[in-house]
Amino acid sequence: MSIQQPYLLTPGPLTTSASVKAAMMKDWGSWDQDFNTKTAEICQQLLRCANASEHHECVPMQGSGTFAVEAALGSLIEPTSTTLVLVNGAYGKRLVSLLTRMGRDCDVLAWGDAEAPCARAVADRLAASPEIGHVAMIHCETSSGMLNPVAAIAEVVAAHGRELILDSMSGFGALEIDAQRTPFLALISSANKCFEGVPGFGFVIARRDALQAAQGRSHSLSLDLHDQWQYLKRTGQWRYTPPTHVVAAFHQALKEHAEEGGIAGRHARYRANMQRLVAGMRQRGFTTLLDDAWLSPIITTFLSPAHSDFDFSRFYAELKARGFIIYPGKLTEVESFRIGSIGQLDVRVMDQLLAAVDDALATLGVDDARPCADAVALN
Amino acid sequence: MSIQQPYLLTPGPLTTSASVKAAMMKDWGSWDQDFNTKTAEICQQLLRCANASEHHECVPMQGSGTFAVEAALGSLIEPTSTTLVLVNGAYGKRLVSLLTRMGRDCDVLAWGDAEAPCARAVADRLAASPEIGHVAMIHCETSSGMLNPVAAIAEVVAAHGRELILDSMSGFGALEIDAQRTPFLALISSANKCFEGVPGFGFVIARRDALQAAQGRSHSLSLDLHDQWQYLKRTGQWRYTPPTHVVAAFHQALKEHAEEGGIAGRHARYRANMQRLVAGMRQRGFTTLLDDAWLSPIITTFLSPAHSDFDFSRFYAELKARGFIIYPGKLTEVESFRIGSIGQLDVRVMDQLLAAVDDALATLGVDDARPCADAVALN
Ligand SMILES: Cc1ncc(COP(=O)(O)O)c(C=O)c1O
Ligand SMILES: Cc1ncc(COP(=O)(O)O)c(C=O)c1O
Repeated sequence: MSIQQPYLLTPGPLTTSASVKAAMMKDWGSWDQDFNTKTAEICQQLLRCANASEHHECVPMQGSGTFAVEAALGSLIEPTSTTLVLVNGAYGKRLVSLLTRMGRDCDVLAWGDAEAPCARAVADRLAASPEIGHVAMIHCETSSGMLNPVAAIAEVVAAHGRELILDSMSGFGALEIDAQRTPFLALISSANKCFEGVPGFGFVIARRDALQAAQGRSHSLSLDLHDQWQYLKRTGQWRYTPPTHVVAAFHQALKEHAEEGGIAGRHARYRANMQRLVAGMRQRGFTTLLDDAWLSPIITTFLSPAHSDFDFSRFYAELKARGFIIYPGKLTEVESFRIGSIGQLDVRVMDQLLAAVDDALATLGVDDARPCADAVALN
Repeated sequence: MSIQQPYLLTPGPLTTSASVKAAMMKDWGSWDQDFNTKTAEICQQLLRCANASEHHECVPMQGSGTFAVEAALGSLIEPTSTTLVLVNGAYGKRLVSLLTRMGRDCDVLAWGDAEAPCARAVADRLAASPEIGHVAMIHCETSSGMLNPVAAIAEVVAAHGRELILDSMSGFGALEIDAQRTPFLALISSANKCFEGVPGFGFVIARRDALQAAQGRSHSLSLDLHDQWQYLKRTGQWRYTPPTHVVAAFHQALKEHAEEGGIAGRHARYRANMQRLVAGMRQRGFTTLLDDAWLSPIITTFLSPAHSDFDFSRFYAELKARGFIIYPGKLTEVESFRIGSIGQLDVRVMDQLLAAVDDALATLGVDDARPCADAVALN
């Protein structure tokens, strides 16, 4: 992998291949058949990745990933239904904000940042609350890096006859998901995460029957998933101007995803990245927020060293000067930072990063990377 | 101008310069200062283009242009206020659809596709309807190509103490607009029109006082203009993941816009393109939908020839084979097609296009390009 520096060790936008970026060097007419073919091929391949071609449709949506989540929630959920949201981090909270803003009822089950949602608690809540029609949750909670137990919860949701909506923004493309085994009403993701495209649109893989029932329901015309789907079906075109270059890049990114062996291949590379990173950081005295069981191959949260000379902005700047962009923490309770393992990176890049971490710590004068005891206790 | 074919003679996405596309060959961290600086510079330059730095703010919004229009309408208009929408084409109608879907009252003044909104009629309606707080209209109605009389209407709106919301999607960057002389509450446009960027975001130039008053008002979290503005002000970052590559391309596009002499320079080139095109097409027997007074330098609608061998798809395909992508009509009453004059095109490209039109007509066996009499009568 020969990539122009700096590497983005972030949960997307991430480091993309030169060939993905090169696909943007042409202007496309959004009305033209050549472009429409790309859109159709993208949707088909995404459905295949989730083994969802039989009962689902893939509908792209302009905007960032949040826009696609809002489109799914606003279009697929009946306004009279209550949605149970499982919250163990910032993106779970955002689901609540989205629903609340559009005036939909929601019920919340919340856990701490370092705790996984518990299927048992979900089962109890569903049994007690007949008004709940849908359960919404995050696949990989990017704010902590936690890989949430989707399979177990999907089983409970199905057993209680409810519908699952899965925000797999940072997971889909690298985390295995099979619509035949893990039933979901909708799965939402975006172009600039594990498929390694550039940012500019998201997409929803939604069950056909629910899409059909969604006509006129969305609170927003721009975010009307049913309209977008119907327009695409009828004309082959996106309803409003698509981010043509971003779509062309994603088409190339999907080709490279398949060449790497699809989800399994990508998962293997990302997991190796994460394992090399975590082992190396632990060797240097750093502590992960999460126990090994919950670590994801997507992104890892490290607790900030307690050392009085550690300062995140300086650490960030030193690493950036060495060609690596890392990510700030998104926890409210403890000081932390995050390092992603997704994008065009392999274990050699992780080794280079670890060497840069050594240099950065030395420059800062931090000779002990252990966090303060309070932070570990919270963990 | 040496540009890779085909030329997009469409109202955006359009033909961009190689240097604008080249700006997308790097991955940007959306949290990084280098990227934030680009966003800030973009917003400042857009404000200067509208001479609006004093009382307005520029807020970018992910998604297509329609998303930015919806964000402006949903955030800036009080839910209890009625909006008068001036409609003389498809984009005016879309303003009505957007407001209706979000449950806002609107009142409509409608004209035919080839008629301009009349300031006198607006004045009468405003005088008679105290419940109207805002007037929303299109600058260049891209569905016909008509340059709407914004200055005259802005004057009437101000004289009646109401607020103007201007969808200048296809006009801003090439049509002169000065916030000091043409008062507006909000002007909406997008990256992929006259500034010659690639598609992926829009932006709203909105009066600061109205933005300040908009907290919590939007029907949609993703499209909340106040939130986006506040987050940008506080952190320098877009609230959700920005289309980083598209933003970098736009930053370069703005540089080239300034180098061409800003709005005046761009207007001159586009107008020359349009004049060469219209003269050449008329010479060949084609008829424009609009009288000269209403032609815009953006896009021109031509009535389809009545000749029985004329077929738009074949005409399109023949022109495409010769390196030119034109645009279908968007009128309901008469058969038509559109040719844009914006993007990286100059009069030499227009001459090449006219030669291609000759070839295409000859291939189709169309020796008379005049429209049917009915279509002209409607005109
Ligand atoms: C799980 C999850 N959901 C939603 C989002 C929001 O995506 P965006 O920033 O593209 O709106 C993210 C972004 O990282 C995410 O990781
Ligand atoms: C005047 C006007 N308004 C709105 C739009 C919608 O923009 P988009 O297709 O980017 O949503 C357009 C697109 O051409 C337009 O010309």
